[in-house]
Amino acid sequence: MSEQTLRVGMIGYAFMGAAHSQGWRNAPRFFDLPRRIELTAVAGRNAEAVTAAAEQYGFAATETDWRALIERDDIDLVDICTPGNLHAEIALAALRSGKHVLCEKPLANTVEEAEEMAAAAREAAARGVFAMCGYSYRRTPALAYAKQLIDEGRIGTIRHVRGQYLQDWLHDADAPMTWRLDRTASGSGALGDIGAHLIDTTQWLTGQSISGVSALLETFVTSRPLAGERSGLGGHGDTSEGAPRGEVTVDDAALFTARFDGGAVGSFEASRFALGHKNAFRVEVNGTDGSVAFDFEDNNVLQFFDGRDPAGQQGFRRILVTEPEHPYVAAWWPPGHGIGYEHGFTHQVVDLVTALAEHRQPTPSFDDALQVQRVLAAVETSAGDASAWTGV
Amino acid sequence: MSEQTLRVGMIGYAFMGAAHSQGWRNAPRFFDLPRRIELTAVAGRNAEAVTAAAEQYGFAATETDWRALIERDDIDLVDICTPGNLHAEIALAALRSGKHVLCEKPLANTVEEAEEMAAAAREAAARGVFAMCGYSYRRTPALAYAKQLIDEGRIGTIRHVRGQYLQDWLHDADAPMTWRLDRTASGSGALGDIGAHLIDTTQWLTGQSISGVSALLETFVTSRPLAGERSGLGGHGDTSEGAPRGEVTVDDAALFTARFDGGAVGSFEASRFALGHKNAFRVEVNGTDGSVAFDFEDNNVLQFFDGRDPAGQQGFRRILVTEPEHPYVAAWWPPGHGIGYEHGFTHQVVDLVTALAEHRQPTPSFDDALQVQRVLAAVETSAGDASAWTGV
Amino acid sequence: MSEQTLRVGMIGYAFMGAAHSQGWRNAPRFFDLPRRIELTAVAGRNAEAVTAAAEQYGFAATETDWRALIERDDIDLVDICTPGNLHAEIALAALRSGKHVLCEKPLANTVEEAEEMAAAAREAAARGVFAMCGYSYRRTPALAYAKQLIDEGRIGTIRHVRGQYLQDWLHDADAPMTWRLDRTASGSGALGDIGAHLIDTTQWLTGQSISGVSALLETFVTSRPLAGERSGLGGHGDTSEGAPRGEVTVDDAALFTARFDGGAVGSFEASRFALGHKNAFRVEVNGTDGSVAFDFEDNNVLQFFDGRDPAGQQGFRRILVTEPEHPYVAAWWPPGHGIGYEHGFTHQVVDLVTALAEHRQPTPSFDDALQVQRVLAAVETSAGDASAWTGV
Amino acid sequence: MSEQTLRVGMIGYAFMGAAHSQGWRNAPRFFDLPRRIELTAVAGRNAEAVTAAAEQYGFAATETDWRALIERDDIDLVDICTPGNLHAEIALAALRSGKHVLCEKPLANTVEEAEEMAAAAREAAARGVFAMCGYSYRRTPALAYAKQLIDEGRIGTIRHVRGQYLQDWLHDADAPMTWRLDRTASGSGALGDIGAHLIDTTQWLTGQSISGVSALLETFVTSRPLAGERSGLGGHGDTSEGAPRGEVTVDDAALFTARFDGGAVGSFEASRFALGHKNAFRVEVNGTDGSVAFDFEDNNVLQFFDGRDPAGQQGFRRILVTEPEHPYVAAWWPPGHGIGYEHGFTHQVVDLVTALAEHRQPTPSFDDALQVQRVLAAVETSAGDASAWTGV
Repeated sequence: MSEQTLRVGMIGYAFMGAAHSQGWRNAPRFFDLPRRIELTAVAGRNAEAVTAAAEQYGFAATETDWRALIERDDIDLVDICTPGNLHAEIALAALRSGKHVLCEKPLANTVEEAEEMAAAAREAAARGVFAMCGYSYRRTPALAYAKQLIDEGRIGTIRHVRGQYLQDWLHDADAPMTWRLDRTASGSGALGDIGAHLIDTTQWLTGQSISGVSALLETFVTSRPLAGERSGLGGHGDTSEGAPRGEVTVDDAALFTARFDGGAVGSFEASRFALGHKNAFRVEVNGTDGSVAFDFEDNNVLQFFDGRDPAGQQGFRRILVTEPEHPYVAAWWPPGHGIGYEHGFTHQVVDLVTALAEHRQPTPSFDDALQVQRVLAAVETSAGDASAWTGV
Repeated sequence: MSEQTLRVGMIGYAFMGAAHSQGWRNAPRFFDLPRRIELTAVAGRNAEAVTAAAEQYGFAATETDWRALIERDDIDLVDICTPGNLHAEIALAALRSGKHVLCEKPLANTVEEAEEMAAAAREAAARGVFAMCGYSYRRTPALAYAKQLIDEGRIGTIRHVRGQYLQDWLHDADAPMTWRLDRTASGSGALGDIGAHLIDTTQWLTGQSISGVSALLETFVTSRPLAGERSGLGGHGDTSEGAPRGEVTVDDAALFTARFDGGAVGSFEASRFALGHKNAFRVEVNGTDGSVAFDFEDNNVLQFFDGRDPAGQQGFRRILVTEPEHPYVAAWWPPGHGIGYEHGFTHQVVDLVTALAEHRQPTPSFDDALQVQRVLAAVETSAGDASAWTGV
Repeated sequence: MSEQTLRVGMIGYAFMGAAHSQGWRNAPRFFDLPRRIELTAVAGRNAEAVTAAAEQYGFAATETDWRALIERDDIDLVDICTPGNLHAEIALAALRSGKHVLCEKPLANTVEEAEEMAAAAREAAARGVFAMCGYSYRRTPALAYAKQLIDEGRIGTIRHVRGQYLQDWLHDADAPMTWRLDRTASGSGALGDIGAHLIDTTQWLTGQSISGVSALLETFVTSRPLAGERSGLGGHGDTSEGAPRGEVTVDDAALFTARFDGGAVGSFEASRFALGHKNAFRVEVNGTDGSVAFDFEDNNVLQFFDGRDPAGQQGFRRILVTEPEHPYVAAWWPPGHGIGYEHGFTHQVVDLVTALAEHRQPTPSFDDALQVQRVLAAVETSAGDASAWTGV
Repeated sequence: MSEQTLRVGMIGYAFMGAAHSQGWRNAPRFFDLPRRIELTAVAGRNAEAVTAAAEQYGFAATETDWRALIERDDIDLVDICTPGNLHAEIALAALRSGKHVLCEKPLANTVEEAEEMAAAAREAAARGVFAMCGYSYRRTPALAYAKQLIDEGRIGTIRHVRGQYLQDWLHDADAPMTWRLDRTASGSGALGDIGAHLIDTTQWLTGQSISGVSALLETFVTSRPLAGERSGLGGHGDTSEGAPRGEVTVDDAALFTARFDGGAVGSFEASRFALGHKNAFRVEVNGTDGSVAFDFEDNNVLQFFDGRDPAGQQGFRRILVTEPEHPYVAAWWPPGHGIGYEHGFTHQVVDLVTALAEHRQPTPSFDDALQVQRVLAAVETSAGDASAWTGV
């Protein structure tokens, strides 16, 4: 690995490819990074499409076989933006080749794959090669600030965790089939796609692990019209790395209750059928001394209730998390000039590159992501067993 | 029963007594009722306290034995505002005496009691004597209007139901013991006190019954300081009809998932430990064509998302439910001049008196309330059986 | 005057009569008043209508001539709920007769009338007879609490005052003519009806008087269809004491900037044409150390920004002003169980009766209301003089 | 000018330089532009600082004299990001040299300068050389969509315009002096810096021009500590192109009422002392058939009230302006994945480059910006003349 430059190869170039590459491009423009970033190559099976993507995203070269990308000598880090069914194979190969890995979430489609990946990551870490999973919402300033408040003890002992991830892009029964609805490619539906964020974010925020769940999964619309080729970038329906089918084989909604190992109880819901909600990723934590609440549809805001405020003066504070005191914010704009969805990916790059430069394990590690995977599996097990309580 | 006057006897005079009597007094001031209301007598065990209550609430006479109140010839309707453990005995006696009954919710502390009460109510109805259970939130204009929109098909087929009832008045581990924390008096904790509202409201709104649940109950604080005598009216901690004890024998929080018999899935949470939330009774229903959402902390507002609005122009409408077109509102103030918590009790009186004058069954009937009771019982059963799915 | 009972005579029984009588009836039910309240008589010109009003509002007797009401020996206080053109004559006569007076706002239709009334009130006060003007919004708990915070120095030196009173009930050009649009009866339009609340509330909150203004008045719709007789109570369009005409002779909207004598600057707007706003009475005050903001459409909430909170943790706190620590609230319901528009009138009665029992001047006095009147007049003068700065 | 590439030279590299360069870099990554963008050179007086800026922002070369930049043959467009006192001289020179111009707002520090610039721009346009002023808020999707709704007649005839631009970064009397508080460099204070946005946005949204104003200006803090050298980019206090002084010679707050030539009335306020508000750029327009409202602190949302919705169902719709149907949005992320402040600058580049490629005048033109300047001047004139009504 170059002492001065981090050479990035990306595999997959759809929605997540667009977001990741924006992160790579923007990080050095706003942050003082310890490494230069070079966007060396991008891989995808369709030569024409991957060439267009390289041009649009700013990669210098292309590959039509991801194995070729991994074998390149001029790449230090492999950024995996494919559907979940390819994560394990690619990540294992990349780590084996001595490449750092950034892998989109969820880590894998099965716990078995995730375990193998985590083991490989631990082994690679011993060699100074690091792997990270892309739960990028951790890098939203409002959530990062919530984490800071919780770590400082501002909300006391945690009692309640509440998570909803509500979208509605599938509510129309005639919306087309995509790889995201095909269990083979995606592993699961709303559960793994958006529910995984709830699990990762709440475990990270609270510093507690989910120890058991009782769950219910529902598929409201069991088949979908087969779409033709989709060429667009940035859409949910992109099919760049998966074959669409007519039958929906994943959950449309996942509901579960949970217990955390530190004593908190949790209520969770993930759905793509919650009409009116576009990206309502909502997390709330209530403790003995305070509460924090967040909704991604108002992403620059953290609600903070300080139970130590004098009686009569208590209330949820709408903190506009755009002050220089807030995580990541000093690099951007003046107070009140908010940032958007994509900035989480820039912050992810900042934290990842900083950790690599310091030869530290970036977080979330594959082990962290494996724990999420275990919860996802427990949810599916419980749902398949009449909601029986299922330990993680 | 007098042809012109409805003579009311009330049993219990704490928080619910204050609210019910305000309803009885105010209904004729703002609505054109088919009956005059006479507040004939109020019963309570403490002679001094019940005399003060009669004076404050406007009742003409007092009784220190509820049985004496029921036996009075000059009473047409018995309004039961006691803790739940007395509901069944009083209601059965009152119906037997040919008195109409308004019974606070939840209907009873056990399904068995509730079944007996519902059977008695059905029998009495055949004789023209009617019973109603006081799920007064149904009479909030915003919720009544939501019901109207749903009944008109404005949100289509229902897929998601979401209910939270979040309070925080017990979050302090040193808050005193009350009858509400004593299973003998109250039947259950957050579940029956506030969770029951979630169940009643969502079943009523959707027109669907909950057919099964998976639940988790939690008691965060298992013992409480014993309070001295409390004489105040209107507080949560009133102990007028129960003996306080040191051990908390009820749930502090109840979380459950549910299925409705019309195909919807539900996520529910009731807690008195959700710090920062005072009376966040939140209900949301998502359908194939629209959504409605409500939060009692903003009680004059209904959020309505119309999925048939043109693309680009869709959004949750913040409907200020204070227009003459809205249920109950024309009797009150000009648009935007909102009403409060107590008005639901006035509307309850209006609907009850109107039904009685028309010799119709008022709603919710004891049968409706029995169904809620069965869900409450299923929640407790599931929670006691490792969250196993439990049919209702 | 009876030592134990305050005997009330009310003149006028439309919207304000409904609100005032609800205040008189409810105050003793929830507050421990130093006087019993007796609703002795109500006066109105139409015998049939006033009889119906007496029945509905709970007055024992009626008068068809307000002078007769004032001359009654069994009345201690005259509550004036007529259009503004009658305020002065009635108030002067009542004070002369030794009756306490509660007069709806604005105090009068002209500064001259208001000055005469204030002089009479000062004179009467020397005799132990008191007059108060009904700026009831001061008794909204959230605003009363804001006043408390400001008085405690929590927002520091005041720099900005911002007031909007936005309604839309006249936005339809075919909405009918009413006495409120007739300058002879109402004195002015949006300015005196709702703008007066902005002036009173902000002067009271800040403890500063408006010293000068620059104003603009606008009448968007200059004539209105003549309505037939209106018999309803509680509507804006009530015509009980005025003859409707075809020409709109008042302002539809009033906009002005202001300076306060303590150094703050103010921006104000009152309109009945702000489509979508029903009763958006909004007041915000920014100081050197904090800010408070209020909107009547969310009347149980006070927004409070504490500039002394640690950097990073600052934000407007949404205080649900429903705690026992908050003004007036302990008498009502548990936290989060909000109150409505009418409760301000109950609190007004409480404060008035308490002051009378203690032989103190209730506030706002007629002098306070006269100051509001002077600002209203300055606004009209400035608007008529090309917005020239006009001292108060 | 190259047929395929637009070669950009930027002058100034502080807050606005950071924002503009992000726009130039990002536009081709997300939009299909008709020209390639080349960041050719950036100019600033401090050689070391401008070199660092070039590196950070991605410019290939630097100049320490803006005249040298303008004389370069390899530049097609000059992007002026300096304080206002340099706008005129630079823009005139650039247009004379046949360079297109993008000039930050406000256009100039005086009407005279602005008139000269607008005349030069008209003359240049005849030669195919175009000038645009950077009122970038027009490119916020929510505001662009509001404009579309208004143009489609969805809110009918406009009656009310309401604009507030509230910040608080100067509320601390010890905040340091900057060029923005020096009239020589900045022209005015809150008025020109943020009030100008209110004027431009509301004139553009309504399609009406402000025809007269009555105004009040206030300076709360008349002197400021002199700051040392500031080297940071992106801060309000940057002093790259101006000499800081001790005396504040501009307004801290500007309040004015206005009339629009289409019949609407307006209420405006701009302040940097509104404690608690960080970037509350709020615009509301009420018409005969609907209303729109926007607040930049929630920049992805447009509030839309449709007065043609059925009675009872009306309410402000919270439209999340993140759908493919909305202006600019299809290029970005899926619904609900909001964008931030900087994106307006990207959209500005898209619209500018598209207009240039089509040999069309981009908007806002210098003439549009001159009209804003005339309103700014009228505000100052009125404020200096005891708020006398002042025509524009």
